[in-house]
Amino acid sequence: MMASSTSSSIEHTMLAASEQLQVPSNITKFKIGLCQLSVTSEKNQNLACARNSIKAAVECGARLVVLPEMWNCPYSNGYFAKFAEDFENEDASPTFSMLSEAACSHGITIVGGSVPESSDGQLYNTSCVFGPDGKLKAKHRKIHLFDIEIPGDITFKESDFFAAGDKPTIVDTDVGRIGIGICHDIRFPELAALYRATGARIICYPGAFNISTGELLWEVMQRARAADNQLFVATCSPSRGSSGSYAIWGHSTLVGPSGEIIATSGHEETVVVAEIDYSKIELQRKGLPLDKQKRADIYLS
Amino acid sequence: MMASSTSSSIEHTMLAASEQLQVPSNITKFKIGLCQLSVTSEKNQNLACARNSIKAAVECGARLVVLPEMWNCPYSNGYFAKFAEDFENEDASPTFSMLSEAACSHGITIVGGSVPESSDGQLYNTSCVFGPDGKLKAKHRKIHLFDIEIPGDITFKESDFFAAGDKPTIVDTDVGRIGIGICHDIRFPELAALYRATGARIICYPGAFNISTGELLWEVMQRARAADNQLFVATCSPSRGSSGSYAIWGHSTLVGPSGEIIATSGHEETVVVAEIDYSKIELQRKGLPLDKQKRADIYLS
Repeated sequence: MMASSTSSSIEHTMLAASEQLQVPSNITKFKIGLCQLSVTSEKNQNLACARNSIKAAVECGARLVVLPEMWNCPYSNGYFAKFAEDFENEDASPTFSMLSEAACSHGITIVGGSVPESSDGQLYNTSCVFGPDGKLKAKHRKIHLFDIEIPGDITFKESDFFAAGDKPTIVDTDVGRIGIGICHDIRFPELAALYRATGARIICYPGAFNISTGELLWEVMQRARAADNQLFVATCSPSRGSSGSYAIWGHSTLVGPSGEIIATSGHEETVVVAEIDYSKIELQRKGLPLDKQKRADIYLS
Repeated sequence: MMASSTSSSIEHTMLAASEQLQVPSNITKFKIGLCQLSVTSEKNQNLACARNSIKAAVECGARLVVLPEMWNCPYSNGYFAKFAEDFENEDASPTFSMLSEAACSHGITIVGGSVPESSDGQLYNTSCVFGPDGKLKAKHRKIHLFDIEIPGDITFKESDFFAAGDKPTIVDTDVGRIGIGICHDIRFPELAALYRATGARIICYPGAFNISTGELLWEVMQRARAADNQLFVATCSPSRGSSGSYAIWGHSTLVGPSGEIIATSGHEETVVVAEIDYSKIELQRKGLPLDKQKRADIYLS
């Protein structure tokens, strides 16, 4: 049931979606829930905590729920292999099972944050998207791994632990077309532009920016990707007190297609529930047609 | 003496500059001055005010001075044609003469904001760059004209008055390679990425964001362009009290290659003087090599 988009399907979509937005006709407004979870070193506790948070979001009316990056596992080298699951073997994956059950029993779409995935002897930082029938709709493997070395500030090398994904992920859900990125993926405007070109109306970025880059850029990146592409950007982070090797920024946020912050949080464990109204996209794109104002002839000269 | 970059020179530059930054060896640190001017309906007064402001910036140590968008002319339809000058006829252009004289007498580089240019029966929103010898080094005509119609918020159609430029502008100065954009040009990440690819270390955007889009996006756009491309972004705006058809946001700003605000202003007439240190670019690009982390194979798939 792996349904992550392939290159050929993206090409096809780009042709079809450039002018016409692909949205189910029966939905223009709905609520999204962002579950900012506190992650511990006990996987079962993380699963239970996430399950409760999904329920809380649904009770507030959410039809789309987003979990954080690396929410079933502390964000530290020593845990990734131990906590990793093989999603091909669904019955042996408690994380897969819980997300599938939660999506199905609540009848919602879940962008399942990210967890360590074990596949063919590699580890990936992977996000699974489930539909209201409980089926896996897409799987995104983090494309851009976070390798940074700023003396006196922060050093981290994610590529020491994980292999990188090699495909963008666009998924049609019952609440519209969504593009998926994980954390450092948000630093690359090209990926967001690709999602916009293929008709995405929301980009979901589970992420775990640290305090240093978080304070500086987490909000700027979200708002720029939303404003440049005139779509919704939803981010979901673990909370500050989570286990792992660095302090997390938090601040899970929904940004609208003008680059405006619709809802956000502090750094504590919480659920952000806010409304997505697709008519804002039409209004913004009609009033300020950035896509038509672009001068590809000049950029490519 | 028109020296604005042509497509062929850009291609040439892209080949040469992709790995090796093109900077005069004798400068790594210098001061920039951003002259946030109050614009009146008297051109001579605007010229005198700009001249004084350039002098003030130089007295604070600036070797590169940036003026605002549309600083010799109120930002209103009724003034553009009347205030426009033909830069091909240098002797009949008081704006050209003043900027040339100021650059030469102070021995500095001036990014001359923008003014209405009359050429071949068209009006352009144009920025002239002068070197320390007083010679015109480049001319940028605003590429993306600001056409917006958001009901209940703001309506403006710049393309009713101006023709659009059709070339990016990259200019080698005595303080390094600079890319030029004017105001709405900042909304297009593709232009900034082109400047980064061609070796620019600073992008200067004279701009006049209004209060509505200014409060929402002026800072976000500057910081995203700087952080995404790991270079300096300098913006210069008229002050709030300027003549013209809409209220101006102000907030002329220098942003560094991590997306950090180095210096900024409020909305009043002022001169912002701050230091540009190119070693920050090397540090940032070495520690977080975004350019190498990009996955063009995926974006183009």
